[in-house]
Amino acid sequence: MSSKIAVGIVGITGYTGMELIRLLNQHGRFDLSLVTSRQEAGKELQDIFPQYRDYPEGKLPVSEPDTKHIAEHCSLVFLATPAGTSMDLVPELLDKGVKVIDFSADFRLRSPEVYRKWYKTDHRCPEIISRAVYGIPELYAEEIRNADLIANPGCYPTSVILALKPALKENSIDSKDIIIDSKSGVTGAGRSLKPDFLFCEANDSFKAYGLGKHRHTPEIEQELAAISRQDEFTVSFNPHLLPINRGIISTVYTRPSKDLSLQGIHRIYSDSYSHDPWIRVLAPEQLPQTKHVKGTMFCDIGLVLDPRSNRLIIVSAIDNLCRGASGQALASANLMHNLEISEGLNLSPLTP
Amino acid sequence: MSSKIAVGIVGITGYTGMELIRLLNQHGRFDLSLVTSRQEAGKELQDIFPQYRDYPEGKLPVSEPDTKHIAEHCSLVFLATPAGTSMDLVPELLDKGVKVIDFSADFRLRSPEVYRKWYKTDHRCPEIISRAVYGIPELYAEEIRNADLIANPGCYPTSVILALKPALKENSIDSKDIIIDSKSGVTGAGRSLKPDFLFCEANDSFKAYGLGKHRHTPEIEQELAAISRQDEFTVSFNPHLLPINRGIISTVYTRPSKDLSLQGIHRIYSDSYSHDPWIRVLAPEQLPQTKHVKGTMFCDIGLVLDPRSNRLIIVSAIDNLCRGASGQALASANLMHNLEISEGLNLSPLTP
Amino acid sequence: MSSKIAVGIVGITGYTGMELIRLLNQHGRFDLSLVTSRQEAGKELQDIFPQYRDYPEGKLPVSEPDTKHIAEHCSLVFLATPAGTSMDLVPELLDKGVKVIDFSADFRLRSPEVYRKWYKTDHRCPEIISRAVYGIPELYAEEIRNADLIANPGCYPTSVILALKPALKENSIDSKDIIIDSKSGVTGAGRSLKPDFLFCEANDSFKAYGLGKHRHTPEIEQELAAISRQDEFTVSFNPHLLPINRGIISTVYTRPSKDLSLQGIHRIYSDSYSHDPWIRVLAPEQLPQTKHVKGTMFCDIGLVLDPRSNRLIIVSAIDNLCRGASGQALASANLMHNLEISEGLNLSPLTP
Amino acid sequence: MSSKIAVGIVGITGYTGMELIRLLNQHGRFDLSLVTSRQEAGKELQDIFPQYRDYPEGKLPVSEPDTKHIAEHCSLVFLATPAGTSMDLVPELLDKGVKVIDFSADFRLRSPEVYRKWYKTDHRCPEIISRAVYGIPELYAEEIRNADLIANPGCYPTSVILALKPALKENSIDSKDIIIDSKSGVTGAGRSLKPDFLFCEANDSFKAYGLGKHRHTPEIEQELAAISRQDEFTVSFNPHLLPINRGIISTVYTRPSKDLSLQGIHRIYSDSYSHDPWIRVLAPEQLPQTKHVKGTMFCDIGLVLDPRSNRLIIVSAIDNLCRGASGQALASANLMHNLEISEGLNLSPLTP
Repeated sequence: MSSKIAVGIVGITGYTGMELIRLLNQHGRFDLSLVTSRQEAGKELQDIFPQYRDYPEGKLPVSEPDTKHIAEHCSLVFLATPAGTSMDLVPELLDKGVKVIDFSADFRLRSPEVYRKWYKTDHRCPEIISRAVYGIPELYAEEIRNADLIANPGCYPTSVILALKPALKENSIDSKDIIIDSKSGVTGAGRSLKPDFLFCEANDSFKAYGLGKHRHTPEIEQELAAISRQDEFTVSFNPHLLPINRGIISTVYTRPSKDLSLQGIHRIYSDSYSHDPWIRVLAPEQLPQTKHVKGTMFCDIGLVLDPRSNRLIIVSAIDNLCRGASGQALASANLMHNLEISEGLNLSPLTP
Repeated sequence: MSSKIAVGIVGITGYTGMELIRLLNQHGRFDLSLVTSRQEAGKELQDIFPQYRDYPEGKLPVSEPDTKHIAEHCSLVFLATPAGTSMDLVPELLDKGVKVIDFSADFRLRSPEVYRKWYKTDHRCPEIISRAVYGIPELYAEEIRNADLIANPGCYPTSVILALKPALKENSIDSKDIIIDSKSGVTGAGRSLKPDFLFCEANDSFKAYGLGKHRHTPEIEQELAAISRQDEFTVSFNPHLLPINRGIISTVYTRPSKDLSLQGIHRIYSDSYSHDPWIRVLAPEQLPQTKHVKGTMFCDIGLVLDPRSNRLIIVSAIDNLCRGASGQALASANLMHNLEISEGLNLSPLTP
Repeated sequence: MSSKIAVGIVGITGYTGMELIRLLNQHGRFDLSLVTSRQEAGKELQDIFPQYRDYPEGKLPVSEPDTKHIAEHCSLVFLATPAGTSMDLVPELLDKGVKVIDFSADFRLRSPEVYRKWYKTDHRCPEIISRAVYGIPELYAEEIRNADLIANPGCYPTSVILALKPALKENSIDSKDIIIDSKSGVTGAGRSLKPDFLFCEANDSFKAYGLGKHRHTPEIEQELAAISRQDEFTVSFNPHLLPINRGIISTVYTRPSKDLSLQGIHRIYSDSYSHDPWIRVLAPEQLPQTKHVKGTMFCDIGLVLDPRSNRLIIVSAIDNLCRGASGQALASANLMHNLEISEGLNLSPLTP
Repeated sequence: MSSKIAVGIVGITGYTGMELIRLLNQHGRFDLSLVTSRQEAGKELQDIFPQYRDYPEGKLPVSEPDTKHIAEHCSLVFLATPAGTSMDLVPELLDKGVKVIDFSADFRLRSPEVYRKWYKTDHRCPEIISRAVYGIPELYAEEIRNADLIANPGCYPTSVILALKPALKENSIDSKDIIIDSKSGVTGAGRSLKPDFLFCEANDSFKAYGLGKHRHTPEIEQELAAISRQDEFTVSFNPHLLPINRGIISTVYTRPSKDLSLQGIHRIYSDSYSHDPWIRVLAPEQLPQTKHVKGTMFCDIGLVLDPRSNRLIIVSAIDNLCRGASGQALASANLMHNLEISEGLNLSPLTP
């Protein structure tokens, strides 16, 4: 048995931190050695997450985030910090030789101008952006292997980019007529104390929000542009809030650019993802459900060709916390350490 | 105080029957005199709906459906029966002078051919179809007042037609490029004992179903054609199942047909519905939530103009059981008896 | 038609304020004339509760709480303020001739010492406590009619006191052996921004909390002592948090003090509550559900006599927001103005 | 790496079958070789459980249950069949040398008379009952190791017996004064198509049911009698239905039989379970939550000593599907094959 690789988590108190602990606990090669939180420093991990009482990691001390300390203890660190915080930490961490997987948007957008436009602040280390690899393994496995900085994708973009990749790559659809109607569970909003996310506000209700304005839009457009080898790309991206904990369904409405059969488009998808263990292209007419991917790395994709309205509808389902955040980060971490991509990530769905 | 008008419900055991009881209990002029159910005949209403213990209507005997008996006791009857059953009852009831509000699809489609195509069975009294009025009061209040047969609209169509009426009427959008992404609570499926509707299957999950194939599609197209004075109309209608009891959000993606401002389109909507007490056109940028209309007749409409993708997005929210079924039926019943349309229907939302 | 009575709500932003608006909207005689909130002053009511757009009360300005202003506009005011705030407002309001219904615990406990012990602060106007009537109409209808200050009961105490009243009054059970296992929906915790009440924390989970230590305990004991004409009374009161919006079930375990039959105890309960329209004593063996009382004033009571363990188990269900808070307050307001107790409170349950 | 052990599941379509698949998929030594279902025979496993598409076990053919066929393919079989069916299969399976873990109640009760009384039918192979071991490893690990027939415990009994074992063993409480208030998620009812378990009936509601009469009562009493070395044992056992998928909280009210301190009773519990990896005795004053054990084998136990009412309150939380059914069965299977008890069962909780 080879020795374990020490990793750390900065910003442990949110849901992506929780999910990383769940996954690292089942991982054979990574050893969670350090967790930090400004507000909870001084406690043990099990004080803030009682579900980890009696686990080995439950006794981990929560420390203040300190790059020197991190560099002494970890070869890789997951930054589960909000947008704007990461860019202050990353340069130092990289300088000290720590590999970084950043959960924020700080290094996802290749253009500092686009960043400023959507995040209303200047990027403070634009020279580092080009070092970052956008961490979707189905797109960038090779680049991830050689990277020391991963921009871990947003949950919505993950669900959308995977839904569209084969169709765009094969020019099967009109790239100028794409409407995305996404629905996300409440963990997607993080663990923030806002009235909208109180149980009594979200329970037994449903709403649209931020139509056409969500900050995940530029990230989606950047990656779809790359896939379709275009300079510009515009989508209509429209999020909704589901009264569930985990899960995203993106229903993507597209216009076929040529005469396609459902069998034909199904073959394009199956072929495109034939080497990707976590993409399940459903049989024609089958449609995905969030519960079928709960707790896993799967992205289930259903395909519908509607001859009446001449639309190809692509529906994808992911677990926003696992595939859309912490699990995907762990897949990158595996690749960065020359482990099997699926190490610790062959998970069973928790149903019901 | 004028005397009460006796009404009945055929097929009391489902959710629309339950909702009718709730609403009739608060109604000043209708008196629920008769309830029927083949499988529960012989019991009292409170035996099957214990929530109505100690209510006057709780002691109502549940009888077998019998048109002669109905005609003796009711001037109007609500048929909360499945598609295919209503058309066997309606001719006799009309003959006997009973006014009918039918909850099934049997009299919604003006064309028997369209009915056959979508419901896979021949219509058994096509000669009566033209007598039926499609019961959306914002469209057909006058016709409803004079009708003796109302085809009570489907819940999805109610949410979609109200969302699109002003834009189509004013030719503000391209009628050939309409995509509807609807999400409904589980009561929309009725009270049927199918595995998909078990708590443990639907809870904490979400899915798409029947994309492009739902039976509410022809009803939507028929009414949108009428509104826009076209012979043919095709939409892409795509339903999803929400883990909530009540509520529908329809997100409707359209293409402006001319240069519109958000203020302009907002004015079109406000003007169009200025005399309709139950349509609330939200301020620009505001978006509806199902909880804000829960238990009420409201249809809340939000408008978003997305200049990036050149789309007008219209979002509507209704309570599928009240506005989308039993409450809307009661509005028709009010009109058919020359009562105020809002009699018994000025309801407060139950939040949280 | 007699003229309307002007009432106000101090502290409008919480769930009990929301529920009062729902109920006052359906009330024929009270007119909501004034709403206050320190943090939301300057807005209209519909800005903070969009569900009340287009309602007459939606345009009400939210003002700063000011006793002089309140006295000029209202003959009665509901104080939906936290414990500790009410006692600073009540003396002035009473002085100015305003009737007060207080939702906090400030005037529920007749003993300032007991108040200090459980609320960890001194009572600041102990001389006024004796003026307050504990607002359960089934216990104190006469006193409420003549009062100018009502201490509106806690939600748990309402469910427990109503469950036990007949058995204690008739000495049917051992008053020294009472265990109460209560389960409440999340609205019982108010609208406070605490992590435990976030959707993702409460959803699909369940927990016990504060066993033996909840602040509603002294209130329960005080009233049970009064009912059973004892000086001291001790119960084991144990709350749990349900992942639902509204509803409390209290399962009360008692020891029969004599040889009782289920029919006998059922008769005691039916007789005791024969004049109380909102208490539904269920048939022997039937058990209550929160959904059957949702949105209503009902307290449903089920009785089980378990011969194996020699226990009489009493189960009660209420809607904690309506019967357990705002609806019960409105019943008191009705009595204080010589209206029918049920004015505006003959509500239908919202099921499903 | 040693070779895999072939196991089978009879009655695959329910929730315990689903959960077994989840767990066996993560198990290093067992190989799921055979699944049966009368109604689904002929399909592949992934046809009935689409969440297992692309898993190795997804391609397993679902066969008719046939003891000869089972014996040829499996060394151990899990019977996820309803009460009354198992006792017809078990004798043949044992004869053919197949080890059996039965999920039904058929072999849990040592007395055929008690079985007849509670299950209203005669036991058809009473001679085999004594061969069965009640499968709680904290009680019977040694016996399980040597058994060929395990009666896998009910979910409620698991939560109750583990809560009470240390206190009863040490005579810390009065064995004649035990009240159990249990609350279970809906999966506890299985996957049966009954109206009460429909989403719209169970969602956002809560109820008591079967107070004093649940069939898990005799099983609880039998095992508590054994623990406390008494011939007879009577408890008041009272179940409630929670609107969650998984999880049981049992709140157990007991009377201390001697002068106990909370520290003292905490030590008794900690010592009693010091060698049991899945029992977490929480720090004094901490209370369990179902989400902290979701998807795991843990039984979290909280202890409260209420001096006011002189009660020791013991609260336990388990995942009814994992610890209370399939996971516990797998622990027995591990022991029966001389594997580590925790093989494949070191699971992380899925939160949120």
